[in-house]
Amino acid sequence: MSATTPVATYHCETLAVVGVGLMGAAIAIHARRTGAARRVIGIGRSEERLTGAVKAGILDGFSTSPSGVRGTDIAVICTPVDRIVEDVRKIAAVLDGPKLMTDAGSVKAAICNPLAGERRFVGSHPLAGSDRQGFEYGHEVKLDGRLCVVTPTEATPAETTDGIVRFWQTLGMIVSALEPDAHDLVLARTSHFPHAAAYALAAALQHGDERFAASGFRDTTRIAGSDPELWTAILMNNVDAVRATLAHHSQTLTELDTLLARGDRNGVRDWLTQGKRMRDSLPPA
Amino acid sequence: MSATTPVATYHCETLAVVGVGLMGAAIAIHARRTGAARRVIGIGRSEERLTGAVKAGILDGFSTSPSGVRGTDIAVICTPVDRIVEDVRKIAAVLDGPKLMTDAGSVKAAICNPLAGERRFVGSHPLAGSDRQGFEYGHEVKLDGRLCVVTPTEATPAETTDGIVRFWQTLGMIVSALEPDAHDLVLARTSHFPHAAAYALAAALQHGDERFAASGFRDTTRIAGSDPELWTAILMNNVDAVRATLAHHSQTLTELDTLLARGDRNGVRDWLTQGKRMRDSLPPA
Repeated sequence: MSATTPVATYHCETLAVVGVGLMGAAIAIHARRTGAARRVIGIGRSEERLTGAVKAGILDGFSTSPSGVRGTDIAVICTPVDRIVEDVRKIAAVLDGPKLMTDAGSVKAAICNPLAGERRFVGSHPLAGSDRQGFEYGHEVKLDGRLCVVTPTEATPAETTDGIVRFWQTLGMIVSALEPDAHDLVLARTSHFPHAAAYALAAALQHGDERFAASGFRDTTRIAGSDPELWTAILMNNVDAVRATLAHHSQTLTELDTLLARGDRNGVRDWLTQGKRMRDSLPPA
Repeated sequence: MSATTPVATYHCETLAVVGVGLMGAAIAIHARRTGAARRVIGIGRSEERLTGAVKAGILDGFSTSPSGVRGTDIAVICTPVDRIVEDVRKIAAVLDGPKLMTDAGSVKAAICNPLAGERRFVGSHPLAGSDRQGFEYGHEVKLDGRLCVVTPTEATPAETTDGIVRFWQTLGMIVSALEPDAHDLVLARTSHFPHAAAYALAAALQHGDERFAASGFRDTTRIAGSDPELWTAILMNNVDAVRATLAHHSQTLTELDTLLARGDRNGVRDWLTQGKRMRDSLPPA
């Protein structure tokens, strides 16, 4: 997607990471390691946490005010999805602020549509993460080789998209462009609803069942250990697509229930085989 | 559960493994390694596969006839759940056959109830496995430290249960006793229905979605890579408990749907928190 070089790169003096949690820390670490930015400063609310991230060697400096982005080159907003629009607007209002802005939120239409007029911003969703929380685990998140979806709207200038694409590519990510709505539909199927299903499976356990939970159950419900606050915001900012996937899932399970009720052995096997075929078609991790 | 020693052990000359797939191989490997049996012979249908297991060092010998269990001490039936009752009966009919018999099936009432009159048999379910198939992967299955559920009926002689308990303990497993029906209810919640849900989540993907499936989706649907034939048999032999769990799961998701439809942020967070609390309460793996 670069206009100039087959392997496009981005190098700047200062990256601002707004919201220094797990993803913010991972981006800071990858940006310094790859030379995408020589310095990384953090913008956040807790002086104590930001001081901890500096001591841990993740940040070069920090500010608890949006004005801390003055003189930076690029800003990545890594706050929870329901705060990103407001945070982008605050950063955009700073004089002599970053020339490029993006975010790392898991929903895109609810963020990119209201920000369509902001010419320095394009939405991003790096598909990486963990059920852990906090900058302390940022080094566990591997970005290189992973997919990052960039979601320009019709109003996004090509140079903004191009700069942000090069930034993620320099961090080692494989970049794909999608419209915000298309992103949200795909992610409802591949991430948002599966999280809801995992929480539901975990909630179905009765006290005393815990010791019978073997590796299958643990894998299937691992993401139910994720932060409910974070996932409340994600689900509520992608309601239509999540509800559509939920309805489809319920319908699929109703089909299984009918097959089991009538003892249709071939039907059950075919039902299971459809899922296995799709699971087996995933590219190697 | 042993009457004589705090760490009960079982040692014999010859173990017969009936059905030498993934679990059969894992049991054979653990039995020789721990000295539970000096020799292991395999009983199966495919001479080619059994020869392969001998060459791989998993078996000392094999037979394609049930009469191959003549002179053995203990037999573990590791065939698919819908063949176990028949296979136990065939083994029990062999003159000078094993003094103890058990199985490794994932459902118990459908197996143990029809076999309640067989005094040398008690049902077992070692909670270990993999989504892989075949004796080639048996060494990847770790039994030591894992739970094995033993499911005596009212008719099972204490010495039969005691012998099988000591066998699994000698392999390093932690043994717990449950009635067959109680086992099937717990396992519907912790394994059987979660498998069905994973297949449904995988089947919901549309072509083109594959590259957007990140680690969360991969973990949640890993067990949808399991053998549909095997899982058809498991689901169809635990229909009532699986359908009850399915109904509960659908109800839980309907609650989420209602909360999302009315934009009830606190309700969504509380719903997710219930799942997280149960997931976080699992003992360390």
